[in-house]
Amino acid sequence: MGLKLFVIGCGSATPMESRISSAFALKRETDFFLIDCSEGTQIRLKNMGIRMQKISRIFISHLHGDHYFGLVCLLSTFHLFGRKTPVHIYAHKMLKEIIDIQMKAGNTTLCYPLIFHEIKENEHSIIYEDDTMYVETFPLLHSIPTNGFIFKEKTKPNNICKDFVNQYNLSSETIMRIKAGEDYIDTEKNIVFKNADITRPSSYKPKKFAYCSDTAYSEAIVPFIENVDLLYHEATFMSNMKHAAEEKSHATAAQAAQIAKMAKVKRLLIGHYSSRYINIDGLVEEARTIFPETVGAEEGMIIEI
Amino acid sequence: MGLKLFVIGCGSATPMESRISSAFALKRETDFFLIDCSEGTQIRLKNMGIRMQKISRIFISHLHGDHYFGLVCLLSTFHLFGRKTPVHIYAHKMLKEIIDIQMKAGNTTLCYPLIFHEIKENEHSIIYEDDTMYVETFPLLHSIPTNGFIFKEKTKPNNICKDFVNQYNLSSETIMRIKAGEDYIDTEKNIVFKNADITRPSSYKPKKFAYCSDTAYSEAIVPFIENVDLLYHEATFMSNMKHAAEEKSHATAAQAAQIAKMAKVKRLLIGHYSSRYINIDGLVEEARTIFPETVGAEEGMIIEI
Repeated sequence: MGLKLFVIGCGSATPMESRISSAFALKRETDFFLIDCSEGTQIRLKNMGIRMQKISRIFISHLHGDHYFGLVCLLSTFHLFGRKTPVHIYAHKMLKEIIDIQMKAGNTTLCYPLIFHEIKENEHSIIYEDDTMYVETFPLLHSIPTNGFIFKEKTKPNNICKDFVNQYNLSSETIMRIKAGEDYIDTEKNIVFKNADITRPSSYKPKKFAYCSDTAYSEAIVPFIENVDLLYHEATFMSNMKHAAEEKSHATAAQAAQIAKMAKVKRLLIGHYSSRYINIDGLVEEARTIFPETVGAEEGMIIEI
Repeated sequence: MGLKLFVIGCGSATPMESRISSAFALKRETDFFLIDCSEGTQIRLKNMGIRMQKISRIFISHLHGDHYFGLVCLLSTFHLFGRKTPVHIYAHKMLKEIIDIQMKAGNTTLCYPLIFHEIKENEHSIIYEDDTMYVETFPLLHSIPTNGFIFKEKTKPNNICKDFVNQYNLSSETIMRIKAGEDYIDTEKNIVFKNADITRPSSYKPKKFAYCSDTAYSEAIVPFIENVDLLYHEATFMSNMKHAAEEKSHATAAQAAQIAKMAKVKRLLIGHYSSRYINIDGLVEEARTIFPETVGAEEGMIIEI
């Protein structure tokens, strides 16, 4: 278990040499979820040691170019490398058309299955689930339909008491069944061991990561993101540019911090900085006056959630 | 007068940190023509000191992503920077749809005029002309419709004999008219000076640059590119991978050199290297055994044509 967030790009609309636009990778045990995919993402992935083959699912928050212009490039590279395993994309409907027309123009039939999962404006629902985690989407407040995502680990199965495993020399299959909640029957002595008596709850606390890519200040998002371990919230401007932020449906560092405080999150990660902020110290300081547990995203950063 | 070629990217399908895919800029007196525009082009332009405002026309050879995936990103950045001057794009028809759908998805109405000039498969024609130069397109031999381009300076106007300018203290307007071919009449003495008697042909030789982005070995292109000052011809592989080149409709370094030799060009520039060639010495050496005046393109290179 455990989640790690890789900051691939944390700039806003205009990419720079030192800071490309939005792109993040969430590492689970065996694979990566890619979250937004700006121009230049595939080169940065390589630099951060993220093997493309390990990217299984891609979540795109909205269709402003600084959040997806690197996607078709990446899908093409998967194809060139002869990928066979499926790629799942979670995004607004029109992205499928955008991908399809570019594949058609290049006369390319992808050599791997590309599975598109449409997310809808104003949707709040679970869009992905497996044995260990699930992903929710919820609406943000931006100039075009934009969705946030929450990545939630599930509760870890109970541990079986070690002594009991040793005493009965349990097979791995039996262990799996007990972990799944079954009782154990000693058929020789005809004794039933209740599951609660031979297991202990795991001490591991499942983690939650919320991603709010582009959004104006919106208290409406607070109920969705309450108590997450890490909240990424955009902070395009400092407070002295609050009006520019409002006009462009973006947030200031102080507003991001205010949302983090209201949602009682453990840590706040800010990013999506305007290119005017070469140095981000001012943004981070502004946020910390309201929410001390603030981290300023920087390219190449890896955050244990 | 005079043309300079800026090598922005010279790799093939997979971009690398040190070598992005195809993108070149041709500098004229006051503006730049961009030729192909791969992912990452806009950041490289900045690094090479090319001001975006100075890019007036963009030529896209074909719709494989490694030749145009950076274009919509660049057009978006023009918009964000509040550009007012028009951008002209010369490309195959479907690129317009690809641009339009992405602008629509982002709810973006560009703040500058974008003028699309369709080029056609198998077309050989002049697609642009002004006072000092013109641009021809011609068909290449690739797996999808692909066009080459030739950028040709026009003959420079004759120079007026300096003594004559001084003797009659000619105005700049009169000088322009004589340069355009008119005779000069001394109205006081009623003498007609024939244009040929008061001008001398310019010693400047107009330059020609031919661009062959992606093409299999094709002698059919030789008549189009004969005697150019600089030929850019792709050289994706070395000869020991000739079969791979054929299969993918690409050329080897030796084949590029053979075309250069047959076309009697002054210099050959090779590029579009497969990512297997981190060091390009082998490709350049192979070409030079056939055509000694070969230069291997490298990112950041500026070539006086």
